[in-house]
Amino acid sequence: MTDEEYMATALALAKKAKGHTAPNPMVGAVVVKHGVIVGQGYHHKAGGPHAEVYALDEAGENAVGATLYVTLEPCAHYGKTPPCAKRVIASGVSRVVIGMVDPNPLVAGKGIAMLRDAGIQVEVGVLDTQCAALNDAFITYMLTSRPFVTLKSAMSVDGKIATRTGDSQWITNESARADGHRLRQYHDAILVGIGTVLADNPTLTHRLTDSAQFAQPDVIVLDSHGRTPIDAALFSNKERHLLIAVGPDCPPSHRYELEKAGAEIVTLPYDTAPESTEANAAQLSLIALLDMLGEKGYQSLLVEGGSQVIAAFTEQRLFDKLITYMGAMLIGGSDAIPAIGGIGASTLAEAVPLTICDACLLDGNVRVESYYTERKGRYVHRDY
Amino acid sequence: MTDEEYMATALALAKKAKGHTAPNPMVGAVVVKHGVIVGQGYHHKAGGPHAEVYALDEAGENAVGATLYVTLEPCAHYGKTPPCAKRVIASGVSRVVIGMVDPNPLVAGKGIAMLRDAGIQVEVGVLDTQCAALNDAFITYMLTSRPFVTLKSAMSVDGKIATRTGDSQWITNESARADGHRLRQYHDAILVGIGTVLADNPTLTHRLTDSAQFAQPDVIVLDSHGRTPIDAALFSNKERHLLIAVGPDCPPSHRYELEKAGAEIVTLPYDTAPESTEANAAQLSLIALLDMLGEKGYQSLLVEGGSQVIAAFTEQRLFDKLITYMGAMLIGGSDAIPAIGGIGASTLAEAVPLTICDACLLDGNVRVESYYTERKGRYVHRDY
Repeated sequence: MTDEEYMATALALAKKAKGHTAPNPMVGAVVVKHGVIVGQGYHHKAGGPHAEVYALDEAGENAVGATLYVTLEPCAHYGKTPPCAKRVIASGVSRVVIGMVDPNPLVAGKGIAMLRDAGIQVEVGVLDTQCAALNDAFITYMLTSRPFVTLKSAMSVDGKIATRTGDSQWITNESARADGHRLRQYHDAILVGIGTVLADNPTLTHRLTDSAQFAQPDVIVLDSHGRTPIDAALFSNKERHLLIAVGPDCPPSHRYELEKAGAEIVTLPYDTAPESTEANAAQLSLIALLDMLGEKGYQSLLVEGGSQVIAAFTEQRLFDKLITYMGAMLIGGSDAIPAIGGIGASTLAEAVPLTICDACLLDGNVRVESYYTERKGRYVHRDY
Repeated sequence: MTDEEYMATALALAKKAKGHTAPNPMVGAVVVKHGVIVGQGYHHKAGGPHAEVYALDEAGENAVGATLYVTLEPCAHYGKTPPCAKRVIASGVSRVVIGMVDPNPLVAGKGIAMLRDAGIQVEVGVLDTQCAALNDAFITYMLTSRPFVTLKSAMSVDGKIATRTGDSQWITNESARADGHRLRQYHDAILVGIGTVLADNPTLTHRLTDSAQFAQPDVIVLDSHGRTPIDAALFSNKERHLLIAVGPDCPPSHRYELEKAGAEIVTLPYDTAPESTEANAAQLSLIALLDMLGEKGYQSLLVEGGSQVIAAFTEQRLFDKLITYMGAMLIGGSDAIPAIGGIGASTLAEAVPLTICDACLLDGNVRVESYYTERKGRYVHRDY
């Protein structure tokens, strides 16, 4: 087996904990001696042992002179657990192959330096693209101090998310909607605009057979004037935090009622002064929002709509990823609600460039996965 | 090998002539004796020998007692060539496995009956879905006397075909556009509205390295008032026929100039009286258009836009297939031009149901293939 193949094994191990490691990244590790895997492991959840520890523990004495494959640079600092680099050195391995360097520029390379100082041969950057893709949100959060923003859109084949009369349930089939629930499981928080709350009264929980194993993501509503009804379905789930972002001119009585109903109210500035009391929720400053969410420790945010809220994120290019589900129908109509509203690009040169990485069928619906091509917070490999 | 596997071989042979057999269907055949393929062939082009003849000629004496696999029921009538059923009987094969029955209800089953009357064991319906999909257009034309209508749309991931200022070149990448040229090779005619002619001045030819091997499809312009400029790029290709469909109120001087420039002018009725002289081309009766094209022998029509023309076809449900290309960008904007304009569905129950059969990446663009679920002219297998 090649280094790439052992790293692929470590990656597969890491993925087993998907949705469970926040705020930590997923990490996998294998120990190989004379072509045999003598130890393997992955980081199960925050606070628990790191992947290297599981793998080295399993390897025991066999670790001496062996090679350790690990998807992420071993840590060099004392956190909830002692530094893994020390544990690796103590194990007696003679070679360490690392998928990607620690994304935090302040600590990147320190684990590698510790290993090399101890005389261990270190190689860095094996399957680094896959290792980075595994922890998109963690990396972006480390690099930008803002959450990784995923936009989700459920549209007809002709790009509409509702008919001209607003009918939208359901455009996509059960498989696509289940995939959307899975997406919720992997995010720290879900965001919608007040328009979606008033139109659809969503619960915004994930509801799959294994949902008990995953935390319910917190919910954020962009609601300039605090119009969320206090009997909204959003209040029905008490396990999670409900955060309502209002503007400075939100009536105090609304704030009071919503707080009493169990929501946390945060005030955001407007990007521009609202033109009317019916001001669109999208006018709240998204930069202030993302900074605030970053400070609160949210690493990943799933934006579920509606059309104007998604347009606000795309027009300001404040997103990282877009998941588009296409239902098997044509809605048509120049006045139907498009997947992305707002002003939009004037010319194609102004359009938001995407990098489409996957398109697949979900029982006759389509799922398209793309990244904002120029997104900040991408991992860039450097040699150490 | 099973019957299905031999039929798959015959199907693969049939496909070799894709784009070359019109107005005939693609057909493939193999002759198998004692588990060995002793003859194979396919219909190369109209006027030439049928698939069975190639396969049986190659098999020669080995055909005696062998099994013939053929994707389409052997013909029973004298056309440009003698009936294949007679040739099959004369060959001495003892068994014939047929993919699908002749779609023409007037002759369906006659070839099978001739074979059975001659004492040959006949089985029908092996891989019939694939055999039918191969000749979608031919089958629809046989069953409805109208061309098979494919709509083509090149849109951004958010379903826009142009920005709010009309910028549309290019939304999709070279691979998607090359695939679009391939699509042209497989159609008898291409249709656009006058809006597209005036905005983009397209040539509407296929331009691929192997294009010399394929006829250039004829071009049809929906142009109520004969506004196509006589120096339009459409006139530059003389190999093909240019047909301009006008309304009854088209100024005679326009007709005269366009005919002089080399176009054929056909007059279609309006579905509803045009409200102004700027009447939308889509108001020409599409039913009358398709009937006229069917009479002229067009089996397949590729509709390339624009938004209002495609909307006219979808709203009247006068289409069979939709090919959607998605370019890697977001255009956004409530006033951008959507893939399908028009009035559109009021509720989701009124939306046009699609059956999505494929989604794939083309070098980072997406291609989605779907059928109108309730299309007429579908092959339905019956036992004979």
